Amino acid sequence: MNFSNKLFSIQKKSNSLLCVGLDTDPKKIPVHLRSKKNGVLEFNKQVIEATKEFASAYKINFAFYEVMGKNGWAIIEKTRALLPTSAISIADAKRGDIGNSSSYYADAILNKMEFDSITVAPYMGKDSVLPFLGNKNKGVFLLALTSNQGAFDFQYKKIGNKRLFEEVVTISQQWNTNNNLGFVVGATKSTDIRAVRKLASDVPFLVPGIGAQGGSVEDVIRHGCTNDGFGVLINASRSILYASSGKDFAEAARSEALKLNNEINFFRDKYF
Amino acid sequence: MNFSNKLFSIQKKSNSLLCVGLDTDPKKIPVHLRSKKNGVLEFNKQVIEATKEFASAYKINFAFYEVMGKNGWAIIEKTRALLPTSAISIADAKRGDIGNSSSYYADAILNKMEFDSITVAPYMGKDSVLPFLGNKNKGVFLLALTSNQGAFDFQYKKIGNKRLFEEVVTISQQWNTNNNLGFVVGATKSTDIRAVRKLASDVPFLVPGIGAQGGSVEDVIRHGCTNDGFGVLINASRSILYASSGKDFAEAARSEALKLNNEINFFRDKYF
Repeated sequence: MNFSNKLFSIQKKSNSLLCVGLDTDPKKIPVHLRSKKNGVLEFNKQVIEATKEFASAYKINFAFYEVMGKNGWAIIEKTRALLPTSAISIADAKRGDIGNSSSYYADAILNKMEFDSITVAPYMGKDSVLPFLGNKNKGVFLLALTSNQGAFDFQYKKIGNKRLFEEVVTISQQWNTNNNLGFVVGATKSTDIRAVRKLASDVPFLVPGIGAQGGSVEDVIRHGCTNDGFGVLINASRSILYASSGKDFAEAARSEALKLNNEINFFRDKYF
Repeated sequence: MNFSNKLFSIQKKSNSLLCVGLDTDPKKIPVHLRSKKNGVLEFNKQVIEATKEFASAYKINFAFYEVMGKNGWAIIEKTRALLPTSAISIADAKRGDIGNSSSYYADAILNKMEFDSITVAPYMGKDSVLPFLGNKNKGVFLLALTSNQGAFDFQYKKIGNKRLFEEVVTISQQWNTNNNLGFVVGATKSTDIRAVRKLASDVPFLVPGIGAQGGSVEDVIRHGCTNDGFGVLINASRSILYASSGKDFAEAARSEALKLNNEINFFRDKYF
């Protein structure tokens, strides 16, 4: 089954558009785990266990692990192994290089580490992205319109009558012969999410930027979903991971994931 | 001393604009090293020893190491430790994420792993790049005009009367308050290197794309150097690493590095 269909099938079964972001910061996990040798892994394990009923995806942000050096890399591998098959795994690694190098990144992350999908940067064009799209079972979330302030520096610049992010979305879909391409579209960009959806009627969006970054769940659902009320993965990281700083962190993460998934589904019911 | 001045000082002392790219592929190293546990590290060590007289920089392409998992990460750390202080170290990792995540990548690669500089992708704008520019002793080579075919997909698109790569070069220099920003400019793009130099009269360029990718050393020197015949780092990877597939690989790498550095200096003498 190609990646897009697999994601749709998982989301339908779990009735969830929620992606839990494992941006685990060793300095922010509860005190009783901070001093433990495998504290971060134990934290991830408990968060995964507590939230898996409400999550259709987990996203591991490599930045938070690379800062721990080779041990961090080992924690990524071990955390990946803990992810349930009931959810899609996303390597939030934002890779992208000339074709030859990209093929090594794709082999590392999609094959060897067995992630279902990866975030990829578009600046270097087709041959930098294709190696990640070669296996139809594995997906790419290409950066299109990101959630940060820096999105305004280049992504909104006009190329003819399109903005750069619209150009990226238009051009890159020509590479999507395996139906495994998606886009990163920031929740903070409100109605511009609709502009991307107009250009890409049925590809999945990975949507960061709710919570700490200020994006609205209602806007994402209303402007980002496909016509059937699917097609988006709404990521939440800090609000779930650090819902409590005490020993009840997993329970608190579960409550937060449930609450957010309910909010998402409330708006899906409202608009679809 | 800020990064740009440090690079200039090293290049002047070594009379070299050569960057040796350690894109070491475990499947391409000589047979007698392939089966050894530390074969890749031993290979890197000998290449570094053999070429350091002629190199002003070493670039480690992370893709080739990440494919080896946590062991690959350990080899990056150990290879970094082997690099001589007479050369600049470049983490060719092409990172870039929202500010909060970029600050973890910067901490991982520039502080913890102690690389002097890193390649960064520009698509996510200012806050994705600034965390890498915060320490004036550490440098960023921002992707501007890359050496691959995919550069034509977005980098050449017109924004007003500029092309995207020119827009990136213009805007990003406003962030260069620490004099530690450089650009990646592909050797395959010939006279367009001059377009970048016109917009950025005195920042260093990291120039991949000679050798296997087909770029010309003469064009790079003529169009890319600053007025004093400095300002570029010409990278060669495969031509040096795999100059011989036998036990004499280090000696062959040395000859190839010397030959290339002589060619570079021949054209510097011709044009400056």
